[in-house]
Amino acid sequence: MHMYNIIEKKKNKLELTKEEIAFFVNGYVNDEIPDYQMASLLMAIVLNGMTDKEIVALTLSMANSGDKLSWKENSVDKHSTGGVGDKTTLIIAPIVSCLGCQVIKMSGRALGYTGGTIDKLESIRGFKVQLDEDTLKQQLEKLNIAIISQTKNIAPADKKIYALRDVTATVESIPLIASSIMSKKIASGAKNLVLDVKVGSGAFMKNITDARLLAKTMVMIGKEAGIKTVAVLSNMDQPLGQNIGNQLEVQEAVSLLNGNGPSDLRELSITLASYMVSITKNINYEEALKLVVEVLQNKKALQKFNDLVSSQGGTLDLDNKAKYQYKVLSNKEGYITKMDTATIGKISGLLGAGRLVKEDKIDYYAGIILNKKINDYVYKGDLLATLYTDKEIDLRNDYLNCLTFSNKKVNNNIILEVIR
Amino acid sequence: MHMYNIIEKKKNKLELTKEEIAFFVNGYVNDEIPDYQMASLLMAIVLNGMTDKEIVALTLSMANSGDKLSWKENSVDKHSTGGVGDKTTLIIAPIVSCLGCQVIKMSGRALGYTGGTIDKLESIRGFKVQLDEDTLKQQLEKLNIAIISQTKNIAPADKKIYALRDVTATVESIPLIASSIMSKKIASGAKNLVLDVKVGSGAFMKNITDARLLAKTMVMIGKEAGIKTVAVLSNMDQPLGQNIGNQLEVQEAVSLLNGNGPSDLRELSITLASYMVSITKNINYEEALKLVVEVLQNKKALQKFNDLVSSQGGTLDLDNKAKYQYKVLSNKEGYITKMDTATIGKISGLLGAGRLVKEDKIDYYAGIILNKKINDYVYKGDLLATLYTDKEIDLRNDYLNCLTFSNKKVNNNIILEVIR
Repeated sequence: MHMYNIIEKKKNKLELTKEEIAFFVNGYVNDEIPDYQMASLLMAIVLNGMTDKEIVALTLSMANSGDKLSWKENSVDKHSTGGVGDKTTLIIAPIVSCLGCQVIKMSGRALGYTGGTIDKLESIRGFKVQLDEDTLKQQLEKLNIAIISQTKNIAPADKKIYALRDVTATVESIPLIASSIMSKKIASGAKNLVLDVKVGSGAFMKNITDARLLAKTMVMIGKEAGIKTVAVLSNMDQPLGQNIGNQLEVQEAVSLLNGNGPSDLRELSITLASYMVSITKNINYEEALKLVVEVLQNKKALQKFNDLVSSQGGTLDLDNKAKYQYKVLSNKEGYITKMDTATIGKISGLLGAGRLVKEDKIDYYAGIILNKKINDYVYKGDLLATLYTDKEIDLRNDYLNCLTFSNKKVNNNIILEVIR
Repeated sequence: MHMYNIIEKKKNKLELTKEEIAFFVNGYVNDEIPDYQMASLLMAIVLNGMTDKEIVALTLSMANSGDKLSWKENSVDKHSTGGVGDKTTLIIAPIVSCLGCQVIKMSGRALGYTGGTIDKLESIRGFKVQLDEDTLKQQLEKLNIAIISQTKNIAPADKKIYALRDVTATVESIPLIASSIMSKKIASGAKNLVLDVKVGSGAFMKNITDARLLAKTMVMIGKEAGIKTVAVLSNMDQPLGQNIGNQLEVQEAVSLLNGNGPSDLRELSITLASYMVSITKNINYEEALKLVVEVLQNKKALQKFNDLVSSQGGTLDLDNKAKYQYKVLSNKEGYITKMDTATIGKISGLLGAGRLVKEDKIDYYAGIILNKKINDYVYKGDLLATLYTDKEIDLRNDYLNCLTFSNKKVNNNIILEVIR
């Protein structure tokens, strides 16, 4: 078997066999196939696509390239394709673990304009994101939940391929994105999975057609791999909730678990949690929804969150200690009808909330609180948002430029579709 | 300007600017752009194509990447896309130089199943393929012709890009093939150019549609670069002439210049030479044809060939000294209707006539003389071919397997089309 022939086959739109796919995945991770051949193949895949069979084979080959975990039948995971202000994990994980679903979330420290779940939790003083095997086991027995940083060698082939895609303009490809995400989920070992596929100006998928295809592809892979999988398409035309930034997002999650919090975040969290409970416990969605709302209302989910924080050594302190607070006031009047969400994410990153290279230090208190969102009517002088930062950097005009005003409301649903 | 954005543009089928193309060509030849990014771009070009504007820019950037020669207005070059038994240069160069066209052929030592023009000439005892500047100048003044090996740094960008294409399955692309050939021709500096684009089982272009597109593309580039260019599409469904192999091809070229030789080789040589004379001297094709036939008939072209050989130190000896001669006799009866020409080329290579890696030593006497070709009627026991070699290797059955017989003749023209 030769890499040259594999590239040629894909170039000519022929279907690659399972063996050919395993050959290039293993060859690449073992440094037997050079970057330039892999880059050529990746571009051919981007432009000529992959069949479902090929996608499944690629996913499984990447999942098998490193450590493989396996959890209990009631284990459940949630994955979001990434959005601005997305703190749903902090809300959903306690909810579903209250309801008998086991949540073992192992997250990596992602690069991006906002931190990952692990960064958000580390904004809590004392919170330990590394637990030894015994402590993890004990905590799972007691609480049914743990959120820790990834120490295993999960899907190293995906890691190496992704790094190459990142520099060869071969990121945008549904087969490659779907197999990348799912290879990590399969290797991570949860038996049930709910995917939150974001669509809109703040998401990787800008339109519903692409997002739907990505969701269907991931659900297909999940089924082929024996994982019960549901995908929810959710709106990312504006930041999720009001708070962006690590400590600010913990604040908002706690507020929501306390019965407050913005409606879009609440609706999405409840929907995702209900699907997780529904597939994990084999009950219908309405029944699961009732249970989810119950543990929110009776504060059992809040208690679970607090228990999680204490068990992992954290002490909650919801005061934001950022040195500067810049108030963004409106210079226009009308309904907000568009928010350039990706740029709002970048602004949060510039304020200090994210890291662009591994060595960057996150400012946990940096971020944005949004006072007005899409379909809110705004008068000149109204407070639109507050920017939190330790830096002397004035990004108020940049924020203003992210907003579009009009005299009519627009359609704006948080849940767009469910694919199962 | 960033390579990433250039790849992305081509991936999205947008036209690259002249500046972007110069950026990646120069960046790659200067080792500033890594192989993997170039490989990704090349695959995007293979699959998404290039506009004429892009192709011209790519060709000129590659032509400008090294030494650039410039010859007189009456300088003329011929380029063949490569075939089996193609010794036309040995015939045509003397013809056109008799007629006031200047021929300075600088050839590289190509890899392949048969040697290049330089290898064929080196099969002549004493023939020197390297001349110092003064000697070259003197010979050109006296004879108007020189065939020497390439010592200049011609189109190094093409060289580096071609080496990468060769291992990333990105060779087959009309824009890339056309720009590769033409970049070298432009840098080599002849003012007039006739291209022999081979079509058929022994050629790189297997069908006339691709060959026509390649020819049109190269003619377009030539015109844009200020070189008078004509392309002749010629049949390569069977070897050209009767002899394959270095010394055997010199034999046949001399025989043709002597007034003998097979008709397909004669017709193609006369046609190519007539176009070269026609464009170089600005006379019409029929007039040029008359002149060409004249210098063949009055042996002036033969005399020129002999002068060239002596001037470069060679002594002709047309005896083949191969140790073994294997006679291939027919085991079938009928018209030969197909010859697997690529495989016949490979057999010649296995006999010793070519080199597959730079270090291989060519056996100048090795090769094949074909006694029967397409549309010849063959009886069982007829001599089909003789295999010449120094090796104890019996490839007679392999040769037999290259032939298809039938009871009807097939269409078989040597000249298929002319593109100008």
